[in-house]
Amino acid sequence: MSRFLNAKYAGLTAYTPGEQPRDRQYIKLNTNESPYPPAPAVLAALGAEDVADLRLYSDPEGTVLREKLAGLYGVKPGQVFLSNGSDDILNFAFMAFGADGAVFPSLTYSFYPVFADLHQVAYETVPLKEDFSVDAAALAGRGKLTVLANPNAPTGLALPLDQVEAIVAADPSHVVVVDEAYVDFGAESAAALLDQYDNLLVVMTYSKSRSMAGARLGFALGSRAIIEDLEKLKYSTNPYNVNRLTLKLGQAAVDADGYFRDNARRIMATRAKTMQALRALGFSMPDSQANFLFLTHPKLDGAAFYQACKDRGILIRHFSDPAIAQYNRVTIGTEEEMAAFVQTAQEILKEGL
Amino acid sequence: MSRFLNAKYAGLTAYTPGEQPRDRQYIKLNTNESPYPPAPAVLAALGAEDVADLRLYSDPEGTVLREKLAGLYGVKPGQVFLSNGSDDILNFAFMAFGADGAVFPSLTYSFYPVFADLHQVAYETVPLKEDFSVDAAALAGRGKLTVLANPNAPTGLALPLDQVEAIVAADPSHVVVVDEAYVDFGAESAAALLDQYDNLLVVMTYSKSRSMAGARLGFALGSRAIIEDLEKLKYSTNPYNVNRLTLKLGQAAVDADGYFRDNARRIMATRAKTMQALRALGFSMPDSQANFLFLTHPKLDGAAFYQACKDRGILIRHFSDPAIAQYNRVTIGTEEEMAAFVQTAQEILKEGL
Repeated sequence: MSRFLNAKYAGLTAYTPGEQPRDRQYIKLNTNESPYPPAPAVLAALGAEDVADLRLYSDPEGTVLREKLAGLYGVKPGQVFLSNGSDDILNFAFMAFGADGAVFPSLTYSFYPVFADLHQVAYETVPLKEDFSVDAAALAGRGKLTVLANPNAPTGLALPLDQVEAIVAADPSHVVVVDEAYVDFGAESAAALLDQYDNLLVVMTYSKSRSMAGARLGFALGSRAIIEDLEKLKYSTNPYNVNRLTLKLGQAAVDADGYFRDNARRIMATRAKTMQALRALGFSMPDSQANFLFLTHPKLDGAAFYQACKDRGILIRHFSDPAIAQYNRVTIGTEEEMAAFVQTAQEILKEGL
Repeated sequence: MSRFLNAKYAGLTAYTPGEQPRDRQYIKLNTNESPYPPAPAVLAALGAEDVADLRLYSDPEGTVLREKLAGLYGVKPGQVFLSNGSDDILNFAFMAFGADGAVFPSLTYSFYPVFADLHQVAYETVPLKEDFSVDAAALAGRGKLTVLANPNAPTGLALPLDQVEAIVAADPSHVVVVDEAYVDFGAESAAALLDQYDNLLVVMTYSKSRSMAGARLGFALGSRAIIEDLEKLKYSTNPYNVNRLTLKLGQAAVDADGYFRDNARRIMATRAKTMQALRALGFSMPDSQANFLFLTHPKLDGAAFYQACKDRGILIRHFSDPAIAQYNRVTIGTEEEMAAFVQTAQEILKEGL
């Protein structure tokens, strides 16, 4: 920290991204990326003229992409907000709508408390139920900005739409953010509720099911007034934050919508097979509706299992939070990658830690 | 504005980007883009595997690019900060270093007061001198975050390095941001001072001289402690904000450093020729050291001249600030584009407004 830093940020602890070690090749199951490339139409979308046209600014409004996404989700283009990945949108949402504080589950995406601290938004957390599911009744009607990851991370568990609706309906004077980064792997989207609730903001990303984490594209759907607020903040920080190539690739991905839905189904099939094999080995885990598993084993210390996997060339994600120290989060990779993970887990169980 | 928006942003007026009309083809001299494409090596840098690899997150540290930029500017990689365009860096700088308020010239990049308002940083402005140059003595030692665009916009005038140094040296306990978006068109970079001053932050961009406005890449050079502060804010908002393709293109551009310096010289030659032709028509303008001219004519109303150019297919930038209502900012395009602009100006003078 320099001696110049504004004191209000002195105690801030930044988010820790998943590790990206460069010491060797790993089977990378630690950051919930897709094991499959983007759609063929996306791969073919960039021509030489697109790179030459980089001399020009991107369209700050992302007009064409917003129209396409509006068509896909049945909303008006003015109800679509584009940004540089969904983290960027979540950041704006805490800024814009956190005046009365924020509330989110005690175990969820670990970036939420960072955004809250950054913007001096006081927050409270609501404990998960015994089975790790979100306590929708306890989360509802708190009189604050409510942030719900659905499916939740790192558990993978999703709330059914009626419970999400109950949260949104319980507090019409505060925004409810439903962070649907993982929604395409089996959960129900709250986008279906947008016609009825003007306090709902549904946040989605190209980083997971659409295989475009490295392109940095997130979008949100909400009432026009909420989207206007987000636009005001975006135009007061970084109007051109989605670059030209990403806009073009994002358009191609919407046009190839079926491709990524097929991929999501493949990943869900791999997930089912992997869960079965791991449970047969004595692992337990919630019924994930996301592209990752959150697993523990009575005979394996969580941190030691993470390290043993890493030593054997497989990266998974271990969290420092003591409440989940015995768990690891494992991204669903290809069939082959998951077979390798199951085999590695079996070897570790046999050899001991 | 929604009823949910935090009251502290209610009065915020966002930045207005230059217009991007779609009604017809214009000669576009309104947003200071380069008329030339990026370097051939940049055009050739992206292969099919780069788009396929978009399934993976970008390196949040931008390790390779930071090493290359550090080599180019003679600093350590830890002294380089990468971000999603230089606006993003300026935003972080106001957040991080504005605790005691900010000061900048009264006429400068119109985004500075927006950043200040966004982060509730009180600011004062220092009037320009009669000739539109920055009053370095008046700007120095104000006991606040000092922000200096050098060359300044929209005037195009640059301070010599000794005057910049005097500002940096005058207040060792506050950060001085030198925004060098246009430095490659003839001004001296304050990067030469980094060894001596730990309160200096030099902000640069790929958007102008490097012909990559649409790629969204900015970088800053400073003491390690200052860069750490910026990293803390970046990792608390959007760690992956530079996408994979941009990182790769940015690397290729550093390798092809000579290309963009040649381009900058071409633009400077076009600028000299254009200034001469316009002065012969009775226009007056400061001696620009940037890729734009800031011009006025005793017989032409500023707003009407802007509109007359637009009607004739040439977009230039007119600002609403009453102090400069008789001026327009005109980007230096190709030789042909500037010849067309000069001819159009001549026609407008002949025909009257």
